[in-house]
Amino acid sequence: MEKTITTRLLYQGRSFSFKTDEVELPNGKKTTRDIVDHPGAVAIVPVLDDGRIVLVRQYRYATGKDLLEIPAGTLESGEAPDTCARRELKEETGYTTGSMKKILSMYMAPGYSNEVIHLYLATELKAGEQGTEEDESITLEPYGPDELLGMMEKNVIEDAKTIAGVLSYLTRS
Amino acid sequence: MEKTITTRLLYQGRSFSFKTDEVELPNGKKTTRDIVDHPGAVAIVPVLDDGRIVLVRQYRYATGKDLLEIPAGTLESGEAPDTCARRELKEETGYTTGSMKKILSMYMAPGYSNEVIHLYLATELKAGEQGTEEDESITLEPYGPDELLGMMEKNVIEDAKTIAGVLSYLTRS
Repeated sequence: MEKTITTRLLYQGRSFSFKTDEVELPNGKKTTRDIVDHPGAVAIVPVLDDGRIVLVRQYRYATGKDLLEIPAGTLESGEAPDTCARRELKEETGYTTGSMKKILSMYMAPGYSNEVIHLYLATELKAGEQGTEEDESITLEPYGPDELLGMMEKNVIEDAKTIAGVLSYLTRS
Repeated sequence: MEKTITTRLLYQGRSFSFKTDEVELPNGKKTTRDIVDHPGAVAIVPVLDDGRIVLVRQYRYATGKDLLEIPAGTLESGEAPDTCARRELKEETGYTTGSMKKILSMYMAPGYSNEVIHLYLATELKAGEQGTEEDESITLEPYGPDELLGMMEKNVIEDAKTIAGVLSYLTRS
């Protein structure tokens, strides 16, 4: 347990903020903790009727390259995670779903971010039109389970939530 | 591809910084990207001779609670990832390893962070003394593969790198 002594907002961004806290450790000593204060997000493993999983490819400015990921997005203010999951799935892939089930929740970078991703399994998918935001450009790439396992072994998939999400889906009983 | 127009350092922390960039999108429009500029990190799946995997439990200020994770830590300036992996494994668990093999690299939060975690498999482990830093308090918890799969199904394990790391290890041929 670490006690917050002071908290200082460094920057308020569009969907999250940066802050730095002075904290007291259990041994009484003090240190600083630099934090991304994030509202949380969702990610979806969308499974087609033929068993293929729909990934999206998009440019990620922070990494300087395209990444292959499961669809995902940030919670809007007051938005329930499953509502957000349906919205992001529709926006990024065009698919609507007859069944959306929670798989798990996970912290992405607990050393410096409180972001939690709520992971969902979407099945009974119906194709429709994408509705990506102005600053997103996304292409769809469906792959079968064996193909995905091979792509993960070759590290062609480099996104942690996608590795965790796809493997959680594939290994659950 | 997104072009950087301006970049602004918001805060220089101990091991990473916060910045905000103005960028030009492929369609010519402009937007901002708020970024954690991170040196990268390592995480280790330490497997004992009896097949159990050594997890560490520690308080994570950003999340406000204890998390059960694979050992991990941030790269020091100029440090090679495999050197860092041996150092962090020793510091957090006390174990030294006769065999350290790279599994994969993964981006933890590519929407806003360039942090990449290099994941290693450590075997031929020899117990020794922990050397945790002053602001770390870590306890060791070894679990067998089946136990870990059950704990992930129950979402007792909530850390993304741990889910991705343990499942990558368990599903690789």
